[in-house]
Amino acid sequence: MPSVQSEELKTLYKGWVAALAANPNMELGEMRRMFEHWGDVTAEPGGVDYVEVTAGGVPALWATPKGCAQDRVLLCTHGGGYVTGSMYTHRKVYGHFAKAIGCRALIVHYRRAPEHVHPGPVDDVVASYRWLLDQGVKPQHIALTGDSAGGGLAITTLLRARERGLPMPAATMPLSPWADMEATGKSFASNGEKDVLVSRDIIKVMASTFLGEGGNPKDPLASPIHADLRGFPPIYIQVGGDETLLDDSQRLADRARKAGIDVTVDVYPDMQHVFHFLAGVAPEADDAIRKLASWVRPKLGLG
Amino acid sequence: MPSVQSEELKTLYKGWVAALAANPNMELGEMRRMFEHWGDVTAEPGGVDYVEVTAGGVPALWATPKGCAQDRVLLCTHGGGYVTGSMYTHRKVYGHFAKAIGCRALIVHYRRAPEHVHPGPVDDVVASYRWLLDQGVKPQHIALTGDSAGGGLAITTLLRARERGLPMPAATMPLSPWADMEATGKSFASNGEKDVLVSRDIIKVMASTFLGEGGNPKDPLASPIHADLRGFPPIYIQVGGDETLLDDSQRLADRARKAGIDVTVDVYPDMQHVFHFLAGVAPEADDAIRKLASWVRPKLGLG
Repeated sequence: MPSVQSEELKTLYKGWVAALAANPNMELGEMRRMFEHWGDVTAEPGGVDYVEVTAGGVPALWATPKGCAQDRVLLCTHGGGYVTGSMYTHRKVYGHFAKAIGCRALIVHYRRAPEHVHPGPVDDVVASYRWLLDQGVKPQHIALTGDSAGGGLAITTLLRARERGLPMPAATMPLSPWADMEATGKSFASNGEKDVLVSRDIIKVMASTFLGEGGNPKDPLASPIHADLRGFPPIYIQVGGDETLLDDSQRLADRARKAGIDVTVDVYPDMQHVFHFLAGVAPEADDAIRKLASWVRPKLGLG
Repeated sequence: MPSVQSEELKTLYKGWVAALAANPNMELGEMRRMFEHWGDVTAEPGGVDYVEVTAGGVPALWATPKGCAQDRVLLCTHGGGYVTGSMYTHRKVYGHFAKAIGCRALIVHYRRAPEHVHPGPVDDVVASYRWLLDQGVKPQHIALTGDSAGGGLAITTLLRARERGLPMPAATMPLSPWADMEATGKSFASNGEKDVLVSRDIIKVMASTFLGEGGNPKDPLASPIHADLRGFPPIYIQVGGDETLLDDSQRLADRARKAGIDVTVDVYPDMQHVFHFLAGVAPEADDAIRKLASWVRPKLGLG
């Protein structure tokens, strides 16, 4: 049985879907303003400071819990279909992650489509990763995480970093990742009635916006289910059991296993897309964040 | 005609009133969680850093716009009937104020009733004011502001500071102040149909919770419409024309005029209680914040 509190995310998502249905030609600015309320469901973590920086030319937000290990960093890539979402929508949720792990979080405000199509977003995140290394943060003291489109970036950033000869970080942790631009996952059918937000239609619109004219939906840098993951650090995926994107997680994990990578997938029954937004509100989100923190802390040398 | 965007605050308030009507014995914790969403309507100001501190023993939040005058401070007291609200609910709204003025804002997380009844809240704010002075901030470089119950505190803090022999700051700016524990204002009748949130019933419950057993509702430190305001700095009040608390502002201004104090009241037609929460969303809020900034900047020596 899902918690009563977990209904709050469904209520938010149903409101968005209703608003989009009532206004199918919603302007980009209005859609972004609507999604800017994503973090409204998240409780304030408290005891976390927030400072804006420019990280390798890319705006970003430091979330620094009081008393954390300053030299350990969680690099965070927000979701929103590469079109919406920001370092502000995900301020609280990644503040919770940083607090649970005991490290700083750098939430990257990468440029979004349609103004900046693929590979704009992934290149921005690679620039922020390189900036962290240039600041003297050791790669083994960095872990990545990201949700939805940002869950894709938590993999593709490392593909691009590998291409550029940059060292791998300690770990990466995609949350409800979107990893297939073609939306071919079987869970679009099997979870079609349960997922209140993510439909194949929405995915198709986001994908074409993100890829731009002539973009290749099979490009591993956009659809990491097609990627060669050899040399990757350990991967930990969390996903809701009711998600249409569930199969993206499973196929990403299969791909990692085939490349000999240490990969774990935790499926949270009855949960919706990026249920982690319920941090401080619903027990499922708090449990997921605790598990994620326990998994990554030793990998960051935090015992 | 009020802006379409200003409806968003009415929608929020109506939701609260409906939830309270559906659950008249709502627990304190649940009520506080509900009010914790106050700031959800406010746009993110952007370019503002937030750092938690302890200010004279009282938790508080620094909101520091990039490039602001670090030695000029806006001391902010949040609303919520002395029972709800926090430095988090008002983070964004006072971030907008600080950005418009070009100074830092210190948002005080004073202890609330019923755990800490009157004069607990006002003493906490005086402690944070004294702390600012102890940090070397000049009184002529400090202005106060606060909304609703915090609008009362923007006056009572100075009454208490005067009692304690502390110097007066440059100015104080109550927003939709609640200044009469007895709720005797004529606007409870004249605006009773227009104000979607503040009723005499709510005020009476908040007042008895705040005053505690045997508390005197005519105490000027709780109801500053009864205060002797001689020696006060200039006062600038902003209030919505549709508020049941409109008369609290008018009587506070009369009281100030009688004491020979420079006082200005701006009534914003058709606006609800603390319409400033619509900062970055509705033109009325942005206009009010611009006017307030223009009024106070020269008083803080910011030209």
